[in-house]
Amino acid sequence: MTATSLHDDLVVFDGLIISRWGPDIFAAMREGGLTAANCTCSVWENFRDTMLNIGRWNRDFAAHADKIVKARSVADIRRAKAEGRTAIVLGFQNTSAFEDRVEFVELFKEQGVGIVQMTYNTQNLVGSGCYESTDSGLSDFGHDIVAEMNRVGMLCDLSHVGPKTSHDVILASKKPVAYSHCLPAGLKAHPRNKTDEQLRFIAEHEGFVGVTMFPPFLAAGNAATIDDYVAAIDYISNLVGEESVGFGTDFTQGYGTPFFEYLNRDKGDGRQLTEFWQVEFPEGLKTIADYPNMTAAMQRAGWSDSRIARVMGENWLSLLDRVW
Amino acid sequence: MTATSLHDDLVVFDGLIISRWGPDIFAAMREGGLTAANCTCSVWENFRDTMLNIGRWNRDFAAHADKIVKARSVADIRRAKAEGRTAIVLGFQNTSAFEDRVEFVELFKEQGVGIVQMTYNTQNLVGSGCYESTDSGLSDFGHDIVAEMNRVGMLCDLSHVGPKTSHDVILASKKPVAYSHCLPAGLKAHPRNKTDEQLRFIAEHEGFVGVTMFPPFLAAGNAATIDDYVAAIDYISNLVGEESVGFGTDFTQGYGTPFFEYLNRDKGDGRQLTEFWQVEFPEGLKTIADYPNMTAAMQRAGWSDSRIARVMGENWLSLLDRVW
Repeated sequence: MTATSLHDDLVVFDGLIISRWGPDIFAAMREGGLTAANCTCSVWENFRDTMLNIGRWNRDFAAHADKIVKARSVADIRRAKAEGRTAIVLGFQNTSAFEDRVEFVELFKEQGVGIVQMTYNTQNLVGSGCYESTDSGLSDFGHDIVAEMNRVGMLCDLSHVGPKTSHDVILASKKPVAYSHCLPAGLKAHPRNKTDEQLRFIAEHEGFVGVTMFPPFLAAGNAATIDDYVAAIDYISNLVGEESVGFGTDFTQGYGTPFFEYLNRDKGDGRQLTEFWQVEFPEGLKTIADYPNMTAAMQRAGWSDSRIARVMGENWLSLLDRVW
Repeated sequence: MTATSLHDDLVVFDGLIISRWGPDIFAAMREGGLTAANCTCSVWENFRDTMLNIGRWNRDFAAHADKIVKARSVADIRRAKAEGRTAIVLGFQNTSAFEDRVEFVELFKEQGVGIVQMTYNTQNLVGSGCYESTDSGLSDFGHDIVAEMNRVGMLCDLSHVGPKTSHDVILASKKPVAYSHCLPAGLKAHPRNKTDEQLRFIAEHEGFVGVTMFPPFLAAGNAATIDDYVAAIDYISNLVGEESVGFGTDFTQGYGTPFFEYLNRDKGDGRQLTEFWQVEFPEGLKTIADYPNMTAAMQRAGWSDSRIARVMGENWLSLLDRVW
């Protein structure tokens, strides 16, 4: 099949987008043939402010019902594909919105929140992050949160989580967990990248790996191409098996410096956590409209149609079906 | 039919209970043959504390699934009847939980909140209460709240609301509204009781009246009998029509003085709003287990089986079906 006709048939699932939600993004989602995505609606926010963010999403679902729809199940995602809409999985990159209450997990599940990262870069009540000086693992409260997420059917995401906390969550969770958006340390050493050992460990426990394209974490940096991205997916696929891998771009489309400052400071306005990168996304994958180029790059790399279909989205749906 | 066999066949809907939720109350609900009830989960609480209350309810739904189940639709209520469980309609007696955000209405609807009183005794952002010195009616923000409650399908309750605000809500709402638990001023003058004119006005606008038994608002006070209660229902039924009336006991079972202090002070701990009554519920209607005695009293009053069935619950279900 040609890249275009194959892409049109695919379920395309992006395991992480944190863009400036609005009509431009929703139009790009449709242009790129995006079936569904894990869309961040909480990073540092508390319970109330996160509920407000979901309130804004609800307004967008009403105003842009021709393009987007809230997804609560894999059936919702497949229905969106058939209807030519993009299914939005609401997701958190932190558990700050749960505050100190286990009960809040279920309340957010009711709003359609299906994927939650346990920590964002630093320590919280649940555990520690990848940029924290020390990581003592999943707290007692964190164990309660994992159990509750298991119970209500919410995916534990470990992308920005510290190594010890990640290890503990993988063992504590009775359902598969995921790195929704990460890159292999085997291609570039970095605190945000995962070692071969970590990648194998999550896969051995029925977990899942979504591969990000964030250039600062790729060996070629800002010179990285879309083919380097596909090579990174290939690297991880060979470690974890082609049923256990997908992608999660980390598109931050529409945002500028103030938002990156917010992300890159502890709790949104505390200490600076990393250098501020000048990021250039790979040529051919500059925007959310460019997913067809990923399909084409996988074809260039000689992947079979069935492997492309799995990695572009079917694997994600299989995972979410098991967790939800 | 005998009272018992008729009662067993009835849909029994209590338009307001604010009791000390727990195993004793749930057992009494089953003993009394209660099909469903509007159960208060917020009086003075803000957004977060109300969500916590719902979190506690969710624990109770899990722990007592043999007796109770959350109701989101009339179909849920009919299913509960068939299963021998009591369907819980989560309800507020105030809009304090919406704080200053219209978006919160939909978020609570998602949790199963189906009935919300616009104000509780005093003025809030939406309007004024029955014990407030002046009532300037529904605020601009209150109009937005009513429109949003209409949109998501949430019943506007006016029992403790001031007369001008009630009037405005009845006109503003595009869906039927209700006094879920009130008594007629025609039998006893009291700021909480509704005049014949008010009762006719809500009925003329397709609204609904649930009748309470609270003895301080009945002419006989603590000497009132269950037959006085049925007479009050009869009085209102004759004013509004037998399709537009139901009951709402206001059972406060299991609570003592500290809780009544909380209810009776503005915002829960401000000024005292009314005298503190020594309340004696009518003989034969002391607890939530005693609903069969209501059916028997209606039979003693010579009501037809079909009228009893309507007033004991079918009318409530018809109303909720139209609103939800």
